[in-house]
Amino acid sequence: MQDDVIERLIEQFRTLPGVGYKTAQRYAFSIIEGKSQRAENFASAIIEAKKKIGFCSVCGNFTDKEICPICSHRDRTIICVVKEPKDIIAMEKVKTYNGVYHVLFGTISPLEHRGPNDIKIKELLARVQADKVKEVIMATNPDVEGDATAMYIAKLLKPLGVRVTRIAQGISMGSDLEYADEMTLAKALEGRRDID
Amino acid sequence: MQDDVIERLIEQFRTLPGVGYKTAQRYAFSIIEGKSQRAENFASAIIEAKKKIGFCSVCGNFTDKEICPICSHRDRTIICVVKEPKDIIAMEKVKTYNGVYHVLFGTISPLEHRGPNDIKIKELLARVQADKVKEVIMATNPDVEGDATAMYIAKLLKPLGVRVTRIAQGISMGSDLEYADEMTLAKALEGRRDID
Repeated sequence: MQDDVIERLIEQFRTLPGVGYKTAQRYAFSIIEGKSQRAENFASAIIEAKKKIGFCSVCGNFTDKEICPICSHRDRTIICVVKEPKDIIAMEKVKTYNGVYHVLFGTISPLEHRGPNDIKIKELLARVQADKVKEVIMATNPDVEGDATAMYIAKLLKPLGVRVTRIAQGISMGSDLEYADEMTLAKALEGRRDID
Repeated sequence: MQDDVIERLIEQFRTLPGVGYKTAQRYAFSIIEGKSQRAENFASAIIEAKKKIGFCSVCGNFTDKEICPICSHRDRTIICVVKEPKDIIAMEKVKTYNGVYHVLFGTISPLEHRGPNDIKIKELLARVQADKVKEVIMATNPDVEGDATAMYIAKLLKPLGVRVTRIAQGISMGSDLEYADEMTLAKALEGRRDID
């Protein structure tokens, strides 16, 4: 016996990733119990973000401008290639990286009928040639599709004389060997380095 | 290097209970990546809920009407007393309960300078007399304040000839004795019943 208006709000919160009914209900009550001003700010932030945020015309990052702040201010001769715009946010946690990005908007996936022409590879090649790029860092996910896509792109780029690298795979910092899976351990062993 | 518009949306999601920066970011991206229609529905559900939802004039439940559906359709001679409107939702999971509710909007708390006159006790007494109530079930939380408030109200109601009960305290269904705390075990023992 809950009012429709409350149910509708709960249903909206349930559309968020990983949110079940109980969590959605908590969120809905927090809106109902909160101030009117807060509800208005919340609603307008949603509308504004959806209306203003698009993709950077150069790299594919989320932005409310034609060209994103990263593309306008950083070293364009190093490009880090990622699968999705949100991967840029993850990579940006590494404060020392001063290059730019390129979003593929997907990976090559025969299973999902997605070939090289369905993702932004052509655009990457054009950038590499136009901006005299020195290094392309492949930061697609460490899974079958991410690896295959990285290999495919590397083969296309090598003839252009650009250095192509892949982010390292191995044991996560702070994690425990005991709980690492076989594949991760194999990659960690394979990528071992000399201790100076 | 994130746009202000995205940051503002993330900040709004962070005001929800239990939501940290990373979760808020996931929610924000799901809005940005979703359809415009979805963002509009979401925003209008927030505005509509905040504008239309108030408290039931009888019991204090959340509702978009003058009197909530529970008060209009159920047995008014049994009242279940709770601390907050959202406790009604929790109690409603018990499908067999056919009585009504009364929200106190707080508990008596000397520490927080909240006395009997700061919560809706007067209104409860009025209802008990007006509706010829047979039983009042005290369903305030099983903590010091909830217990004290239940005791206080019971003392006021007893002279009116109404039955006053307290929800049982004990081991949760499906839980393990091993992990139950001392207080819960003591309450479980105290409330033991004959096995027929």
